[in-house]
Amino acid sequence: MHFASDNWAGAHPKIAGNLVRHAGGFAAAYGASDLDNAVEKIFCEIFEREVAVFFVATGTAANALSVTAASRPGGLFFAHREAHLVEDECGAPEYLSGGTRLHPVDGELSRIDPQKLGAAIGQFDPAFIHAGQPVGVSITQSTEIGTVYSLAEIDAIAGICRDNGLPLHMDGARFANALVSLGTTPAEMTWRRGVDFLSFGGTKNGCWCAEALVVLDPAKVGEIPFLRKRAAHLFSKSRFIAAQFQAYFEDDLWLETARHSNAMAARLAGHFAASGTVRLAWKPEANEVFGIMARETAGAFQSKGAIFHPWKTPHGFAGEIGEDETLCRFVTSFATTADDVDRFGDLIA
Amino acid sequence: MHFASDNWAGAHPKIAGNLVRHAGGFAAAYGASDLDNAVEKIFCEIFEREVAVFFVATGTAANALSVTAASRPGGLFFAHREAHLVEDECGAPEYLSGGTRLHPVDGELSRIDPQKLGAAIGQFDPAFIHAGQPVGVSITQSTEIGTVYSLAEIDAIAGICRDNGLPLHMDGARFANALVSLGTTPAEMTWRRGVDFLSFGGTKNGCWCAEALVVLDPAKVGEIPFLRKRAAHLFSKSRFIAAQFQAYFEDDLWLETARHSNAMAARLAGHFAASGTVRLAWKPEANEVFGIMARETAGAFQSKGAIFHPWKTPHGFAGEIGEDETLCRFVTSFATTADDVDRFGDLIA
Amino acid sequence: MHFASDNWAGAHPKIAGNLVRHAGGFAAAYGASDLDNAVEKIFCEIFEREVAVFFVATGTAANALSVTAASRPGGLFFAHREAHLVEDECGAPEYLSGGTRLHPVDGELSRIDPQKLGAAIGQFDPAFIHAGQPVGVSITQSTEIGTVYSLAEIDAIAGICRDNGLPLHMDGARFANALVSLGTTPAEMTWRRGVDFLSFGGTKNGCWCAEALVVLDPAKVGEIPFLRKRAAHLFSKSRFIAAQFQAYFEDDLWLETARHSNAMAARLAGHFAASGTVRLAWKPEANEVFGIMARETAGAFQSKGAIFHPWKTPHGFAGEIGEDETLCRFVTSFATTADDVDRFGDLIA
Amino acid sequence: MHFASDNWAGAHPKIAGNLVRHAGGFAAAYGASDLDNAVEKIFCEIFEREVAVFFVATGTAANALSVTAASRPGGLFFAHREAHLVEDECGAPEYLSGGTRLHPVDGELSRIDPQKLGAAIGQFDPAFIHAGQPVGVSITQSTEIGTVYSLAEIDAIAGICRDNGLPLHMDGARFANALVSLGTTPAEMTWRRGVDFLSFGGTKNGCWCAEALVVLDPAKVGEIPFLRKRAAHLFSKSRFIAAQFQAYFEDDLWLETARHSNAMAARLAGHFAASGTVRLAWKPEANEVFGIMARETAGAFQSKGAIFHPWKTPHGFAGEIGEDETLCRFVTSFATTADDVDRFGDLIA
Repeated sequence: MHFASDNWAGAHPKIAGNLVRHAGGFAAAYGASDLDNAVEKIFCEIFEREVAVFFVATGTAANALSVTAASRPGGLFFAHREAHLVEDECGAPEYLSGGTRLHPVDGELSRIDPQKLGAAIGQFDPAFIHAGQPVGVSITQSTEIGTVYSLAEIDAIAGICRDNGLPLHMDGARFANALVSLGTTPAEMTWRRGVDFLSFGGTKNGCWCAEALVVLDPAKVGEIPFLRKRAAHLFSKSRFIAAQFQAYFEDDLWLETARHSNAMAARLAGHFAASGTVRLAWKPEANEVFGIMARETAGAFQSKGAIFHPWKTPHGFAGEIGEDETLCRFVTSFATTADDVDRFGDLIA
Repeated sequence: MHFASDNWAGAHPKIAGNLVRHAGGFAAAYGASDLDNAVEKIFCEIFEREVAVFFVATGTAANALSVTAASRPGGLFFAHREAHLVEDECGAPEYLSGGTRLHPVDGELSRIDPQKLGAAIGQFDPAFIHAGQPVGVSITQSTEIGTVYSLAEIDAIAGICRDNGLPLHMDGARFANALVSLGTTPAEMTWRRGVDFLSFGGTKNGCWCAEALVVLDPAKVGEIPFLRKRAAHLFSKSRFIAAQFQAYFEDDLWLETARHSNAMAARLAGHFAASGTVRLAWKPEANEVFGIMARETAGAFQSKGAIFHPWKTPHGFAGEIGEDETLCRFVTSFATTADDVDRFGDLIA
Repeated sequence: MHFASDNWAGAHPKIAGNLVRHAGGFAAAYGASDLDNAVEKIFCEIFEREVAVFFVATGTAANALSVTAASRPGGLFFAHREAHLVEDECGAPEYLSGGTRLHPVDGELSRIDPQKLGAAIGQFDPAFIHAGQPVGVSITQSTEIGTVYSLAEIDAIAGICRDNGLPLHMDGARFANALVSLGTTPAEMTWRRGVDFLSFGGTKNGCWCAEALVVLDPAKVGEIPFLRKRAAHLFSKSRFIAAQFQAYFEDDLWLETARHSNAMAARLAGHFAASGTVRLAWKPEANEVFGIMARETAGAFQSKGAIFHPWKTPHGFAGEIGEDETLCRFVTSFATTADDVDRFGDLIA
Repeated sequence: MHFASDNWAGAHPKIAGNLVRHAGGFAAAYGASDLDNAVEKIFCEIFEREVAVFFVATGTAANALSVTAASRPGGLFFAHREAHLVEDECGAPEYLSGGTRLHPVDGELSRIDPQKLGAAIGQFDPAFIHAGQPVGVSITQSTEIGTVYSLAEIDAIAGICRDNGLPLHMDGARFANALVSLGTTPAEMTWRRGVDFLSFGGTKNGCWCAEALVVLDPAKVGEIPFLRKRAAHLFSKSRFIAAQFQAYFEDDLWLETARHSNAMAARLAGHFAASGTVRLAWKPEANEVFGIMARETAGAFQSKGAIFHPWKTPHGFAGEIGEDETLCRFVTSFATTADDVDRFGDLIA
């Protein structure tokens, strides 16, 4: 009963298999191989326009280099206070960007409230250098707690960015899960809304290690080739990332794995609803389910082999968590089986 | 006839195979899996002592984080002027360390001259803050041009470090090639000589992407866990690096691949000696061979399918390169075949 | 009617005079002169212990270098959300420290609430590197809005620092105003409570430019000499700062000027209370007075020559500000005259 | 007999006097006062065009912020290997610019050799990101050893900058000394040649602390207001710098003081020539004189009250320094008297 995180899974067999297929032979290093080029073209097809793709080692790198690319001295980057780049990256965005400040914005269920975003940016008068200058906005799709921004919500945030001349970054560590949840296309969910920089994650959805910083308008690439190299994120055998993405995209494998993990999340949520022991905290929209249960009950489940973690109450959570209760996170992945979910369902019934 | 670089090769079948073997199942992320722990233990066995191992995405990361770990404000890090961290890392060591300066030191055939190192360090009076403070020394084993420091030479440099209270870093992007060249042990080539931080490279010698910063005395780990995470180099599915290293070390595969590529280099050098068209620039001690030939001849070889690059004349090169001649680098790897080498031998004969 | 800021004043005649007195002759540069040494000794006497004194160009430099000195990778520095280093330093602390994050803490009237500080620090598990590590706490004395921490309040915060192994920094841009407000001694207000690093400001209280980073326990100086030089804050003719501080301390001039400006603030507050047009927002404890008045009225006063600025409502302000009203800040200084204050009293009567 | 450095002098009486004149009254802080504006206008007159002026605390700050303003990721800034920003700023340029590398260039008597500069820049292929990218060139006028670039030499270097699309910075810590040495105008020595950024120093030539980063084409100001504030170099009582510069420029005081100190240097050099004990190392072109003498003799002079320092042999010095000899530096300033020079002349006669 593995619900600790989607990064506890390994690699999808088709992805591992493609790595083996490309293990032999010689090819140009540092992203110049034919395979690298071919995979960049696939990205362009998927996004229905020319995009620039930079493989990096981690989602944190894609996020932090996006912040760095967008930043200017005294810069303030706006993100939800529970965003991964605020809470889980050990200050990488601040460090790699040379001191850009992450300015937290509130909003229910980990989604930035556009009004609050507008107000937060509005506090900063461009002529008052003492307070610094707004340089960008980041949203997470899907969010850290398994909710998803609707296209209209992305529009609202992108509009504020446009009004303030700020680039919009999307942390897509779970991009595919959001995409299939909305039933939309990569183009619709990103640049057609106004997203400029995208951290495109493949690792959580079936790859070993496949992350890319996608610049949706190549005219905005700027110094990113140098930024990546200087941050020690230019792989020499870059084609081993390319090979993963090639298999990831082939025959829409990535959408299939994302649909599967979202379906497993919904199935788990169904078990919560049917159980007498666990309350669903909010409706899962991607591959994360949050349940409220007695602390003692949680311990009992864990001692019977269920792996999951307590989580901190998100900002603006309207429900109630009793003193003896705990909020817990359950993450599903391409590797989660219906059997495993149902076994947990039986346990909590 | 592939001699462009050892990072143009792919992955050794045993390494690719082990990745597949570990593709399934669930395991703790961020370096906490059983496999991660098991591989750390293998490192300890190989180095004959407890060491701390930090996987990172690139050799540049291992180098730059070593510099960062050792550095202090106004810091000067001494390295050969042709070292990879000086010439090929786009300022990553300076950037990630917050401005440490790389102070170039001369020496023949890419090896630091101990006397010149002592003189260079001696210029800096610790009480004169204007000039900054020495904070460390880095050597490359094997060097960028395929030469190797003898144990006595490492001793001499380590002695200077000790006298000046400076840590010694070894860039071991081609560690195995140097090791089998000297016929010594990892312990003898590192901490028994006085090496504190080691960039241990597996990528060039048969892995897809397997690099580690090895702290040879765990008491010196300091803030490295934070440094790595903050530089966005902590892999979530860390075990995919561990799996590569596991196969790399099993049955001494790494020594076998290194011996093979060194042998291919020697074979190539033999062809140079026998040919009338290419002069061996200096004796290869690892897996890189440098030849001097007429510029026109080089072009002719390349047009017949040989892949290799011109190289800049190293500091202190005693030989002569005519006006119409060019110095070229040939790199062999685990994937180089005797056939390919001999075909080039025939070409230049 | 000058109430814009205490940094709109010039220099006290005795301080300007002492600069002239020391204009001639030759003396060692970079802080090594006899005068520099003599003034360091005066600091030691004033603080009743050996302290280390580093002159810098601005209060921002003293703050940011304190953060830098205390910081470690992935570091979080806790300060009130309205602190100068959070709101008015254009990211200098983040930038100079290489990316340390300022973690905002709440508390009424710009004073950190010790309970909230404890809770904020307690969120960070030292073993969970993803979230970063707490590295220090900063308080401002007197605060940005003219309130003062009591000795007991400093004790409470210092206790939390001790419990968590964190250094405590005090931003003393208006140190003297707080000191005479509490009627205590420098030693009592700082190291006897547990303050480690102090930004000691002289500029706002009568100097041209005299700021110092005072390390209250010289054993904690660490790399500060290099940090200061590397940040380009080591003056060559350092004695021109020393000369200002010499006059500042002579015959307790600094306490006299601080008492004067605090008295002018109290006098102004008295006028507010007596007036029908301005409500005192909260009791001034140092040299800043905040009044609430109709927006139109404020404009009228300004058009009659009163210089003061609207201010943003501080966190936890219990009073009420009507829709047509504005909160305004009035700052007094050594140069404020009773006449000027009374003229404004007449205006608002 | 004070020849240690021009920063051992104090302040010229007219400059100290002007500070006192501006000590009273109230004025807008952070560079917005009438006096600040008036002094900016004087700069524009002196440079015969609109320029942007940023006061900072030290020459190191002006240099390092110029590097920062010009820099880009992986940047290489070219300067003479004996330049102040290479040898005497504790890594401030690297640190404040986020890791830009200072690439040393050779040239006789501390002047960059244009051919060597062209060759050094030419090594870097803009398409090869591994090696980084050239971002600027810095020259020092007058140099660290009292030599001066002719206008033709500046032209040659500026031409190379233009050809490579690089900005040119001039470290003018001793700008006035060079100016009067060449008998030219500020415009001719800077922007008419192609200088973009100028560190304009007043401190060594009679001010207490008056340094400015002058952007010779305001269109190139970019983010400097933020860069300065973020580096903690925006003075609150900025007008105390303005007041110094006002007096500095009034009635060409600055040219007079520079002429005086150059004349004192020439007088000292004359004594060297006449003496039997000291050999002039090279012809002084500004306010620094270098002499070669027996080590023992130097000690004897010092013990009789002469203050001067041994200096390291500059790159490309054609003369000879015997084993028992030492090269020593003598610096004159506005405060040096002919009497003092002659007393030393008597001593060495």
